[in-house]
Amino acid sequence: MAEKIDALAARYGREVAWHPYLLGAVYKVTGGVPLTGLPMKGEYALHDIVRSARYLGLPFVVPEPFPVATQHAARAFYHLQDTDPALARRFALAVFRAFFVDGLDISSLDTVKQVAESVGAPGDELGAAVSADAIKARLKAECEAALARGIFGSPYVVIDGECFWGVDRLPQIERWLETGGF
Amino acid sequence: MAEKIDALAARYGREVAWHPYLLGAVYKVTGGVPLTGLPMKGEYALHDIVRSARYLGLPFVVPEPFPVATQHAARAFYHLQDTDPALARRFALAVFRAFFVDGLDISSLDTVKQVAESVGAPGDELGAAVSADAIKARLKAECEAALARGIFGSPYVVIDGECFWGVDRLPQIERWLETGGF
Repeated sequence: MAEKIDALAARYGREVAWHPYLLGAVYKVTGGVPLTGLPMKGEYALHDIVRSARYLGLPFVVPEPFPVATQHAARAFYHLQDTDPALARRFALAVFRAFFVDGLDISSLDTVKQVAESVGAPGDELGAAVSADAIKARLKAECEAALARGIFGSPYVVIDGECFWGVDRLPQIERWLETGGF
Repeated sequence: MAEKIDALAARYGREVAWHPYLLGAVYKVTGGVPLTGLPMKGEYALHDIVRSARYLGLPFVVPEPFPVATQHAARAFYHLQDTDPALARRFALAVFRAFFVDGLDISSLDTVKQVAESVGAPGDELGAAVSADAIKARLKAECEAALARGIFGSPYVVIDGECFWGVDRLPQIERWLETGGF
């Protein structure tokens, strides 16, 4: 979804507001569990995600370990977002690619810093930034906002109040943008 | 999926072997729960299923109650299948429409009989047929076969050993049929 949504939105004169949040924080409230741990469904899901990436023409490997903690990456995004939204977007995409293409462990702060530097962000200052109370509170508030909005999964897209969960809803998202709702 | 899969297969010179089974029997083993009962996700799912039907151009109402027990309908299918496969297929589609379009309670044997009669099957004999030990064993074996195959949900399609879960995988199914695998 991260690789597709900006270009899709732009074709219909729309912009995407990215909101990283922690799926784990939401799962604590909803009782959700990582898909990959479920009997039978987990095995299917791993196969399906790889096939879906091929279907969409996107490079993809299943990271190991998967899933991982993403609070450093999410906080770094919000830190960058406040000063340079375009840079934050490039960073977010680079983090997704580091994880889902290069198989890097993005739970590591060092990896997050290296990814930030690769897109031209000052990696060094991120170390302090992601442990600042204000940015921790910011991410916590984003998680609470997601929960309050009824958001239980990822990727999740809201257009004009209409909710779409999963990259497999891209065709419905496009129809929605085309028609203004269907 | 029931409304689309036969025509899609036929376009690629393939035939569909339908295998009704009981999702409840599978959930007992996998720990799965009906989607509609999950916090937040259940509410989304009900909205999504209605929107997905509109997207596919199919009439649909959320049945009430939903989900319901389907063993009468599934056994009736296998009973008809043994003597007239084309009739069994018409019956299956009619049961789906009775449930998902007309909102009838297909857990009722009387409803199953009426649906059978509406497609030209002898409703009266179904009453005895669905309580025969052989047909009960047949459905049980189908549920066990589904579990053994790793099938955890519905709709579920297997093509050349490749598994697809959910009506939202129709585009991938079509690509698979077009290309012989991707």
